[in-house]
Amino acid sequence: MTLKRLNPGPRMSQAVCIGDIAFLAGQVPDDLGADITEQTRQVLTKLDAVVKELGADKSDIASIQVWLADMADFQGMNAVWDEWVDRDAPPARATGGVPLARAGMRVEMIAVVALPKSV
Amino acid sequence: MTLKRLNPGPRMSQAVCIGDIAFLAGQVPDDLGADITEQTRQVLTKLDAVVKELGADKSDIASIQVWLADMADFQGMNAVWDEWVDRDAPPARATGGVPLARAGMRVEMIAVVALPKSV
Amino acid sequence: MTLKRLNPGPRMSQAVCIGDIAFLAGQVPDDLGADITEQTRQVLTKLDAVVKELGADKSDIASIQVWLADMADFQGMNAVWDEWVDRDAPPARATGGVPLARAGMRVEMIAVVALPKSV
Repeated sequence: MTLKRLNPGPRMSQAVCIGDIAFLAGQVPDDLGADITEQTRQVLTKLDAVVKELGADKSDIASIQVWLADMADFQGMNAVWDEWVDRDAPPARATGGVPLARAGMRVEMIAVVALPKSV
Repeated sequence: MTLKRLNPGPRMSQAVCIGDIAFLAGQVPDDLGADITEQTRQVLTKLDAVVKELGADKSDIASIQVWLADMADFQGMNAVWDEWVDRDAPPARATGGVPLARAGMRVEMIAVVALPKSV
Repeated sequence: MTLKRLNPGPRMSQAVCIGDIAFLAGQVPDDLGADITEQTRQVLTKLDAVVKELGADKSDIASIQVWLADMADFQGMNAVWDEWVDRDAPPARATGGVPLARAGMRVEMIAVVALPKSV
């Protein structure tokens, strides 16, 4: 069985699809010196880009795990999330405190996305 | 593509379905002053309720991530889990220590559930 | 609906399948005195075995969450991962720091795997 992969690299793919479900790699910010507001924006911008590359749309995101290096950033993440989320089609979500791969990295998001049937 | 959602709110949905798979939001306890025994019961009761609302059944739960704010609660969570679980149809499971969104919150569970084909 | 389960025990199954998608239990090392290199090898060997039991193959692994008890083990885990991974068909991945169920346990991996259609 050959799975459809988005941007496979030597270590991981950005997304791997089983049928019409895409499982995404954890999306992380680029600017590790930035605060939670800016890092959350960067992560959601990257997530939007991956979703678009998959031929899908924000309303096709079924679930997101939000990992925060420090749960003190919960309110800050939520403020950006609430501006970003499609209020008519919000994903299921869970948020927890998880130390991340690099110093200064405050937020990572792991999504599951529905693909349009035609893809 | 329009995904079926259970109880969408302004921030998240309780569950979002892709085809016959439902991805659930993290289920959390209501009584943050309670011990791990009571909080685990509350989370599993909520999970049972969401599963029922989806038209599914305990044996349709495919996987659960269990997040414990303190891994010292592992035995206490397991004692309640072992009474709850369908021994003929147990889910896949992983349990880890994850700081949660609110002070006093000891356990959160994230489930993936199969929907009856007729739904 | 009866889900296909791999090695169901009294507490959990090793994997539960919804259609052609298998959700695996967290795979953990056996030797809790071993270093991250050996524990990562043990976890990936177990994962390979479960995937094979499912009738699938390394290239059918869609996503893996890697939980490390101590993120200081990130490089050590990656060194073993990079030898193991199918560079032509890498999974989506996210890695975070998560205290695990037993003292000495350094790494746990949670995978989603595509089943061959014929199974």
